[in-house]
Amino acid sequence: MKHTVTFFPGNKTVEVEDGTTVFKAAVEAGIETGGNCGGTGCCGKCKVIIEGKCSGEKNPHISDEEYAEGYRLSCTTEIRGDLTVLTSVSGGSKKIASFYDEVDVSDISPLVSVEKADVQKPSLDNSEADFERLKRALEVEDLQSLPAALKKLPGILRSNDWSIKVALCDNSLIDVIPKNKSIYGLAIDIGTTTVALELVDLQTGKTIEAASDYNHQIVCGEDVVSRMIYEEENGQKRLTELILDTINSLIEPFKNEIHAVCIGGNTTMIHMLLGLETKSIRFEPYVPVTNFPPVWRASDIGINVFCDAPVYIIPGCAGYVGGDITAGVLASNMQQSENPSLLIDVGTNGEIALGCKDWLLTCSTSAGPSFEGGDVSCGMRGIEGAIDCVKIKDGKVEYSTIGNTEAKGICGSGIIDTVAQLFLDKKIDKKGRIKGGVFHLTEKISINESDIENIIRTKAAIFAGCCVLLDAVNLQFDDLEKVYIAGGFGNYLDICNAQVIGLLPPIPHEKFKLLGNASLSGAKSCLLSKDKRQKAEGIAQSMTYVDLSSSNSFFEQYSSALFLPHTNEERFSITGK
Amino acid sequence: MKHTVTFFPGNKTVEVEDGTTVFKAAVEAGIETGGNCGGTGCCGKCKVIIEGKCSGEKNPHISDEEYAEGYRLSCTTEIRGDLTVLTSVSGGSKKIASFYDEVDVSDISPLVSVEKADVQKPSLDNSEADFERLKRALEVEDLQSLPAALKKLPGILRSNDWSIKVALCDNSLIDVIPKNKSIYGLAIDIGTTTVALELVDLQTGKTIEAASDYNHQIVCGEDVVSRMIYEEENGQKRLTELILDTINSLIEPFKNEIHAVCIGGNTTMIHMLLGLETKSIRFEPYVPVTNFPPVWRASDIGINVFCDAPVYIIPGCAGYVGGDITAGVLASNMQQSENPSLLIDVGTNGEIALGCKDWLLTCSTSAGPSFEGGDVSCGMRGIEGAIDCVKIKDGKVEYSTIGNTEAKGICGSGIIDTVAQLFLDKKIDKKGRIKGGVFHLTEKISINESDIENIIRTKAAIFAGCCVLLDAVNLQFDDLEKVYIAGGFGNYLDICNAQVIGLLPPIPHEKFKLLGNASLSGAKSCLLSKDKRQKAEGIAQSMTYVDLSSSNSFFEQYSSALFLPHTNEERFSITGK
Repeated sequence: MKHTVTFFPGNKTVEVEDGTTVFKAAVEAGIETGGNCGGTGCCGKCKVIIEGKCSGEKNPHISDEEYAEGYRLSCTTEIRGDLTVLTSVSGGSKKIASFYDEVDVSDISPLVSVEKADVQKPSLDNSEADFERLKRALEVEDLQSLPAALKKLPGILRSNDWSIKVALCDNSLIDVIPKNKSIYGLAIDIGTTTVALELVDLQTGKTIEAASDYNHQIVCGEDVVSRMIYEEENGQKRLTELILDTINSLIEPFKNEIHAVCIGGNTTMIHMLLGLETKSIRFEPYVPVTNFPPVWRASDIGINVFCDAPVYIIPGCAGYVGGDITAGVLASNMQQSENPSLLIDVGTNGEIALGCKDWLLTCSTSAGPSFEGGDVSCGMRGIEGAIDCVKIKDGKVEYSTIGNTEAKGICGSGIIDTVAQLFLDKKIDKKGRIKGGVFHLTEKISINESDIENIIRTKAAIFAGCCVLLDAVNLQFDDLEKVYIAGGFGNYLDICNAQVIGLLPPIPHEKFKLLGNASLSGAKSCLLSKDKRQKAEGIAQSMTYVDLSSSNSFFEQYSSALFLPHTNEERFSITGK
Repeated sequence: MKHTVTFFPGNKTVEVEDGTTVFKAAVEAGIETGGNCGGTGCCGKCKVIIEGKCSGEKNPHISDEEYAEGYRLSCTTEIRGDLTVLTSVSGGSKKIASFYDEVDVSDISPLVSVEKADVQKPSLDNSEADFERLKRALEVEDLQSLPAALKKLPGILRSNDWSIKVALCDNSLIDVIPKNKSIYGLAIDIGTTTVALELVDLQTGKTIEAASDYNHQIVCGEDVVSRMIYEEENGQKRLTELILDTINSLIEPFKNEIHAVCIGGNTTMIHMLLGLETKSIRFEPYVPVTNFPPVWRASDIGINVFCDAPVYIIPGCAGYVGGDITAGVLASNMQQSENPSLLIDVGTNGEIALGCKDWLLTCSTSAGPSFEGGDVSCGMRGIEGAIDCVKIKDGKVEYSTIGNTEAKGICGSGIIDTVAQLFLDKKIDKKGRIKGGVFHLTEKISINESDIENIIRTKAAIFAGCCVLLDAVNLQFDDLEKVYIAGGFGNYLDICNAQVIGLLPPIPHEKFKLLGNASLSGAKSCLLSKDKRQKAEGIAQSMTYVDLSSSNSFFEQYSSALFLPHTNEERFSITGK
């Protein structure tokens, strides 16, 4: 009996015989799982997360908790049914392409503020209780203490001679710590494909560490809809565990110092994180449980930071326009501008916002993950070894990689460059047909017709979404003050090439501005600034959602855009590099 | 080798050989442990809680959780060291002597209010999220949802055709339930010896069930100081578990319907419940962690009711004057009166409050548990079978029992009656010496000189405390408008007899008012009324604590009161019944 095994990252599928080890299947698929003990289960380095039927004894390298979440050693696990496998779950890389304009930290009012408290020592004449004494020192009369802080208070006060530091969130006492200890905040972007986070010093606003990893939920489906289907069939528990596992493994070394968390993410990811069912998002009329998640404690959610750390989630606007888009608008500041601008967020979905200080429209297209390296045979996310910039002239290829290391695959900006350059070099036609069916960038790294088909579908969906929003308010691309681009591209996107393939409209280059990972920068802004948190709420409240699934006009626009650059070539004034 | 085994209730101690079963030791001590299988461990009915060294296999009648808390079957457990044993842990009696003036329920503003919500159904034109939709229906703009409610919301809305009931605490959504389901509140009095509670309908204010049990912590010490010593030597964990176990076994049948909890108790009991260390209460300057515990969620504390139910704890004033006294003042309303009144709370400690609308003084005496049936050989708490009323004339005894059943022991009011009547009948002298050393009320129930000694010490401490407070403001007993008596006596206390033994001062009977279990009535009041909660805070804030441990005057007054009725007989105009 044969089984189908699909590996992430890379989305590579192989067919193998029943009983084959996952390790062997990975070798067959050309996927590196790590491991250096010859498949004996000794080194514990070929850890993967598996969804599907498999067998094999529990290995001591896998904890009980990990085992329950589907962690296995690939070398000792035999394939017994169709599987999805996530490799590279080693805890994420510190080198991430989460670039964005540096967040303004001149006026810090963080979600959790740190203050010194010099508390008067008690005596027989003044036997006020510890907590009431602390309130007096802080001059916060209606201060309320969360459990952990109150339990620690008497010990900390007495072992630090009544002079301590406190962590406060509004009128809640979050923690009490010795004066010399630091308190950090955590900004997280939960993408459908990638989770990126930064550890931030709450007093200086500086980022201390950054890390990212694939969203481990990927083994349950590549896009939000397939994860919602997984939820319907198998319950939500594992999806929640997998996203928590992604975050918790990245922050392990700092977990106890983290006292505040801010999260940007799409509505489905946020629902799965919080344990809110997504069924009603999936079906008409696409209603989330909430677009304005309350501030809960980290331990309520299961994020392994200081138990009572408040978790602020950037509010969203609809089932398919989440807090990540609010964060993009916040980063662009387009909601304060006189003239309309456009925001395009290129992730696994493509979300678009159009507007100015008086109004904001948004929509979402199921673009697909091509520009995040998904759905493309040699695609990868923008980490070390990814080809991020490509030039092709007369079939000759020049490229650069992130970190200037050996090329391992192609990330979003490299994919756009490749398709545009091949088109300009006349190696592919306007329908995306490629001469010879495949083009090699290196010996191992290539792009084929099926890849290009996916890329064209992605760019067409995004472009069509922009057109529908503009049409709704009778505007043209030329009327736009700015076009902001958010998403995993970082600083690498070549605007020209993006225009060549028809992803971006042919307007002057100076109108474009790359925001980088706006969801992460928004999370960091909101972590550090009360003003930004209030602005985010205002943006989420004022956005009007346009449902493309019921829009005929969207379908027409999409069909017209399924060409390079577009059916209507006159709309594009192609300029090569 | 011999070991000492002490049984509660009853405080009976026996010496037995190493290896004796607890069951046999109980029989020797004349204590009923239940059980009807002949000591084979089959019936599981002789369950006790043990503190100390013992051995024996874990019996299937004991759950893992119970085992960890020291539950054992007495018949299969062998004594291996000095032990303390709490018998009768079957889950408490429903017949309790928790009498108090009925709480006014005309104007209910409960800790958790229940409201109907008719929520508009969503459509493609109106795809607002569920929670935002609910906010609109309730017209509470800043509504925040606790985790459980938000997780349940989408399912409950859709399965109840968008018409539901909600439980709210201020602007927090606690729970969402179908319209036909009920929501209850829980009022608890945590006494050092006894825990009493009532299940209250939050919409009508009516008490639906009442129950009480010994505070299971009794195996770790009879009074607050010995429990604090236990905490110092063994950590607080088990004390917290034992009080939670006491509460949780009493409420088991109703746990899921309980959505609000209000608690009255002394400062030490509250600290042990909340997991706050008591070390600084025990030593000078006797500083608690807090006198105003924050409202936490039940699951934060470990009370097994609806997880997000808020727990309100009546604030106290000092380490030895807790929320139970605040509740007593609240029940008396003396804090609003023009002229000073006195409140005496007779529990394991004797706390006293003196004051009027302009000022309030309080103090605490380590009275001992005599009037709760402790420290007295045939003492018991005021439940069915307790002798509560005694007349003795020429050695002939008449008595009544609670529930008019066979006499099992003597409760507080019966103890006072017995001593007073014996004194009037000249069977004991003013020093408490008894003719023949013992007096039998029935064949099995008697009172001896050691009992009377304890009773005299208890009443002397309370009386001395009253004198010190009055002296502090230059008042006499005659200046008092009222004398309120709170504590386990309920409706049974005979004022005359209490004056005969010198517990109460010789002032006109109409000035006395029995409040019953004011801590429980206060908890019920605060559960049902915002005004009462605010008043309780006001009382706790305005009480001034007088420390008797450093008072010479207290020691003098105490020594003078160690007689029947008092050294200074002229202070007492004795009147018999």
